[in-house]
Amino acid sequence: MTDVNLTHLLEQMTIEEKVGQLVQLATPFFKGATDRGEITGPMVQMNISEEDIKQTGSVLGASGAKETTNIQRVHMEENRLGIPLLFMSDIVHGFKTIFPVPLAIGSSWDLELAEKSAAIAAEEAAASGVHVTFAPMVDLSREPRWGRVMEGTGEDPHLNSEFARSFVRGFQGDLENDHTKVAACVKHFAAYGAPEAGRDYNTVDMSDWQLRENYLPAYKAALDEGCEMVMTAFNILNGVPSTGNEELMRGILRGEWGFEGPLISDWGAVKELIPHGVAEDAKQAAEKAMKSSVDIEMMTSCYTNHVQELINEETLEESIVDEAVLRILRLKKKLGLFENPYRGTSEEKEAAVILSEENRKTARELASKSMVLLKNDEVLPLASDQKTALVGPFSTSTDILGPWSWGGSAEDTITVDTGFLNHIEKEKLFISEGCGIEEGTEDQLQSALEQAEKAEVIVVALGERSDMSGEAGSRADIRIPEVQLDFLRKMKELGKPVVAVLFSGRPLDVREVIDNADAVIEAWYPGTEGGHALADIIFGKVNPSAKLTMSMPYSVGQVPIYYNRYSTGRPKDAPDAQVRYVSQYLDIPNEPLYPFGYGLSYSQFEYGALTLSSDEMKYDERLTVTTTVSNTGDQAGDEIVQLYIRDLVGDVVRPLRELKDFKKISLEPGETEEVVFQLNESQLRYYHANMEHKSDAGEFEVFVGTNSRDVKSKTFRLVK
Amino acid sequence: MTDVNLTHLLEQMTIEEKVGQLVQLATPFFKGATDRGEITGPMVQMNISEEDIKQTGSVLGASGAKETTNIQRVHMEENRLGIPLLFMSDIVHGFKTIFPVPLAIGSSWDLELAEKSAAIAAEEAAASGVHVTFAPMVDLSREPRWGRVMEGTGEDPHLNSEFARSFVRGFQGDLENDHTKVAACVKHFAAYGAPEAGRDYNTVDMSDWQLRENYLPAYKAALDEGCEMVMTAFNILNGVPSTGNEELMRGILRGEWGFEGPLISDWGAVKELIPHGVAEDAKQAAEKAMKSSVDIEMMTSCYTNHVQELINEETLEESIVDEAVLRILRLKKKLGLFENPYRGTSEEKEAAVILSEENRKTARELASKSMVLLKNDEVLPLASDQKTALVGPFSTSTDILGPWSWGGSAEDTITVDTGFLNHIEKEKLFISEGCGIEEGTEDQLQSALEQAEKAEVIVVALGERSDMSGEAGSRADIRIPEVQLDFLRKMKELGKPVVAVLFSGRPLDVREVIDNADAVIEAWYPGTEGGHALADIIFGKVNPSAKLTMSMPYSVGQVPIYYNRYSTGRPKDAPDAQVRYVSQYLDIPNEPLYPFGYGLSYSQFEYGALTLSSDEMKYDERLTVTTTVSNTGDQAGDEIVQLYIRDLVGDVVRPLRELKDFKKISLEPGETEEVVFQLNESQLRYYHANMEHKSDAGEFEVFVGTNSRDVKSKTFRLVK
Repeated sequence: MTDVNLTHLLEQMTIEEKVGQLVQLATPFFKGATDRGEITGPMVQMNISEEDIKQTGSVLGASGAKETTNIQRVHMEENRLGIPLLFMSDIVHGFKTIFPVPLAIGSSWDLELAEKSAAIAAEEAAASGVHVTFAPMVDLSREPRWGRVMEGTGEDPHLNSEFARSFVRGFQGDLENDHTKVAACVKHFAAYGAPEAGRDYNTVDMSDWQLRENYLPAYKAALDEGCEMVMTAFNILNGVPSTGNEELMRGILRGEWGFEGPLISDWGAVKELIPHGVAEDAKQAAEKAMKSSVDIEMMTSCYTNHVQELINEETLEESIVDEAVLRILRLKKKLGLFENPYRGTSEEKEAAVILSEENRKTARELASKSMVLLKNDEVLPLASDQKTALVGPFSTSTDILGPWSWGGSAEDTITVDTGFLNHIEKEKLFISEGCGIEEGTEDQLQSALEQAEKAEVIVVALGERSDMSGEAGSRADIRIPEVQLDFLRKMKELGKPVVAVLFSGRPLDVREVIDNADAVIEAWYPGTEGGHALADIIFGKVNPSAKLTMSMPYSVGQVPIYYNRYSTGRPKDAPDAQVRYVSQYLDIPNEPLYPFGYGLSYSQFEYGALTLSSDEMKYDERLTVTTTVSNTGDQAGDEIVQLYIRDLVGDVVRPLRELKDFKKISLEPGETEEVVFQLNESQLRYYHANMEHKSDAGEFEVFVGTNSRDVKSKTFRLVK
Repeated sequence: MTDVNLTHLLEQMTIEEKVGQLVQLATPFFKGATDRGEITGPMVQMNISEEDIKQTGSVLGASGAKETTNIQRVHMEENRLGIPLLFMSDIVHGFKTIFPVPLAIGSSWDLELAEKSAAIAAEEAAASGVHVTFAPMVDLSREPRWGRVMEGTGEDPHLNSEFARSFVRGFQGDLENDHTKVAACVKHFAAYGAPEAGRDYNTVDMSDWQLRENYLPAYKAALDEGCEMVMTAFNILNGVPSTGNEELMRGILRGEWGFEGPLISDWGAVKELIPHGVAEDAKQAAEKAMKSSVDIEMMTSCYTNHVQELINEETLEESIVDEAVLRILRLKKKLGLFENPYRGTSEEKEAAVILSEENRKTARELASKSMVLLKNDEVLPLASDQKTALVGPFSTSTDILGPWSWGGSAEDTITVDTGFLNHIEKEKLFISEGCGIEEGTEDQLQSALEQAEKAEVIVVALGERSDMSGEAGSRADIRIPEVQLDFLRKMKELGKPVVAVLFSGRPLDVREVIDNADAVIEAWYPGTEGGHALADIIFGKVNPSAKLTMSMPYSVGQVPIYYNRYSTGRPKDAPDAQVRYVSQYLDIPNEPLYPFGYGLSYSQFEYGALTLSSDEMKYDERLTVTTTVSNTGDQAGDEIVQLYIRDLVGDVVRPLRELKDFKKISLEPGETEEVVFQLNESQLRYYHANMEHKSDAGEFEVFVGTNSRDVKSKTFRLVK
């Protein structure tokens, strides 16, 4: 079918066929799937018939050119009007070539490399038959207890927005013409990253002002970049589950933002309106979701079983169904599926692109650029001729891909020990686990002590199992398990230099790690090439440059914590602050252990004077902010130069710092570079109490520095 | 001056005199104060002249009939129009006779006794010259990290509202005619109890729905009870500091609720609009506060120095000043100050009422009714003839009055050891501190071990110093200090029965205390008669009956936690819940260690069947909910029978439990009582997404039980 007239097609569709388009089911439901047997039970349970399957609009989680081609072929034979299936999958940080988790990618502050990672993921997935990826996840989060912080790029609305754009560009590119691309589906709309007490799926509550100021921008940025789809969030927002939230979906997403693409529920979220307590049954759930313009129901059958009934009863207008179907058909058309239902799917292409040398190279580069050096007391980089112990549960572990990497496999993963052997002779490397993730034996410990005794330096690879974060992976205690801390202490007691490497999907309370190591690297979950990337850093082939995009809390008692917080009326550090009656904890500092934007290098960077082109800026002018950065170390290195502002007086309170721009520069030893930023009035806008988004004339402070804490500053006035 | 015509008086006032009424300064600013010397500096700093002092409207923190009379006398001589001063003070849980902290009073669930405590506080304070107390503090809080949770009655909007009403009745009574009464000033408007991350004065952000549903009701209840004044909160609410928040003050407080009394800033809060970053200078701070209808500025001089200027510039209308002045004059008139500026002030009355036997008796009763028995493995009550060790830092401490008890004194305080000696012979009581609050010596420990060795049972009195909670007393770690836990473990190791008594101003993480004691009492800060009250409980003279009004968290990683939380779409305990993909922590339970409403007795209470008068309720009908409660123990005891509801399907999500009623009953051993509740439609109303406050027809669950967790339930339908 070429140049299909969608309105005409819609007119030919029965109501069953229309509703079918609104349904998404997992691969095993479909004929042609490799393993169908197990699905019979669920089909009965969901009251879905083989006839329904034939009408279904999209497939969840299909994988592999062979299977997706089979499914599509059967479907095209059986679907009366020949409407092709859409294949959607969670391709979050790589398909088969797994990149670091997004929180790590964020730490690279490298928008181009992030885009490239998404492009590679798209290419591998598209060859495999995927049309839509449920990414990027752009949920701003200030909650390290929440397991899904690993899936986003951190706590800053500006940086998250930039990454959202990069990922969308990388996935989609020239989507209509380039069949190595996939459509992006930004998620989870909205504010899923603020679950109360860090417990996944829990209550989200915030003011409209907070929502617009901090949580919405990254979704909006993804859509501005052309993102084709949106996914609802599991959480309530101000009392109403997102998936049945008319104000959010029709009001903001469709109304204010004019989004016209398909809106899909998260897995089961339509039916979850029942346990949320806002729908009495599946029928009411269907009604609320449809009225909220949720076009596709994922993995439950409220639409299948009740939409027709709702129309017959005139509870729901058929035009609402029609508009939903049209949105889905339009995307199918845009993807070229009416012309070629198989699009870019190809076993040959799969073989050529998946885990290609080029893809692995990019994964390795991005991983090494995403590891944050937290501490380095003149230990790193290690010399290759030093006798080195590599101990700890992550020494040889393949569990370094991180959550949401179902396409990746252990056998393709470069472990830390493998990476090390690129740089150091086998005879000089002494490997032992020492303990497990949550428990250890005396034998494990003794063996590690023996290995460590032989070495001159000890690298301890610690952290959380990947299932300790990710979806439904909330933890109330954000320290690494006691057995590992104990093990680290024992290594430290040997009196040799200790390098701790942390694998985790969240910012941890790392106080005890810092105290018991001479150097500490936060490696996150670095992906397929993780072992190579880490070794590149440890042995100095790559000079670390990553910077945290979430504050590392002092302790869990300090969360939520984030750099762009507001002043209080009684700031602790004010000139006339009292000893007692200021905003503080009695037992810990207000400041996180490591601030947003923090990360060390093997080089040292010195910032010169900060100069502004003027101390005034008119509304239509630009202000030039200039500094110099010198590499005073003895090796080449990259520095992420960060620009923050503070609006000193606002209609509402303004953050103490707001990231507005950054530049990543490379400097040879001894080299100095002038770094120039341009500021304009649009960057000074914010949401006023009446929700107007505008700037105010008045005084601003500009900060430039190596992280959000260590900055130089100047002030200027915005004048009418 | 009798029957003063306030409008006429206002007309005679110069603008300076008007502005003077809007100012509140501390006692030492005034002639006639006992110690004035030190104030010269602040007067200069604040740009306040002796002339300004003469015009000033009110005095903060005056104390004692002698001094207040002096100040008023001088003032009446010097004030041109003879407008008397208003004396205001923080009389929070007693004036000289200190009652338990409000969080403890809340645990009594005894509204009458709470009212009586406020009446006694009022009587003592009124004799001493106080006209207005800055109480009740009714800030709902779910944040044990926050130090001021001790000042409110907990996490439930209904219970907080009931206590708000009781306190207002107790303070105010027949205010106009009864000069043993004082005006109440409800605080802190609004939502001060939700500071982010539990850090005092920190950002508060919530949806309007959340605000109305949970945080506003108790303020409203106080005003419905006739509370004369309102105090602003230090925090921002949705970006705007309360003290400059027109939407909150003019919109909700004055507009929707029609509040016409004086609104006072908290200490310094007008000027704090500057560090908050919403006012450029004191002048703009004055403008924003005045426009928000903040009538009285406490302890800063933005009004004094700038209101006149703002009027001259026509930035502020004089009518706004006039309405503020009138509100203040009206209260002075209502208090009878124009007729008798000294009102109930009297040194003789002071001597008669302060710390009277009757007052102490009430304090003792309330304290014993506020102590929560958390655990009792057949240890309590203790027999008087048992050799008993009383150890721990609170054994002999007078620091049991709690924060906000500045009128109380150590010498009037009954310590724990004194209380014990009422019940046990000196020879059988072995006393030793064992350790300090945050540190201890080996000598202290050894001495306690020696004393404990002599005893058959060990009572360990532990806890937080009172300044570890209260204003600006936030803590990120809510366990008792390690030295005390260590000490408790050592006591436990002696193998004798151990009773732990906790003194604290917040719900603590008590896991280790529970594990190392056979019985545990949460004594809060019990006030002047604390030692007597605790001994009454421990030796069985009083059977404990108190119940928690804040959830006791499992750990700090679980906060905020509260019983009336909402379901999620993926509840952990649902019949079809998955193992992984439900809302939970991987490392701790979702449930608190002890739930809201929890508390043990020396008796056992058995609940009979729950019956409803019908399984349907019409809008204009009442539903009768009946149960029986039997005392199956061997001593008389009080039980707090609690009724909760759940609205199974709402327009917005509804709490899993909502307290709607409770009854405190007394039962002899073997006695059974029928407990009858009436439910009506108005109790089923809630805020819909569009902010309508109404009920929905449909199914409800009713729960009755001994706490919010252990309940029996029935369902009914509300029908049109």
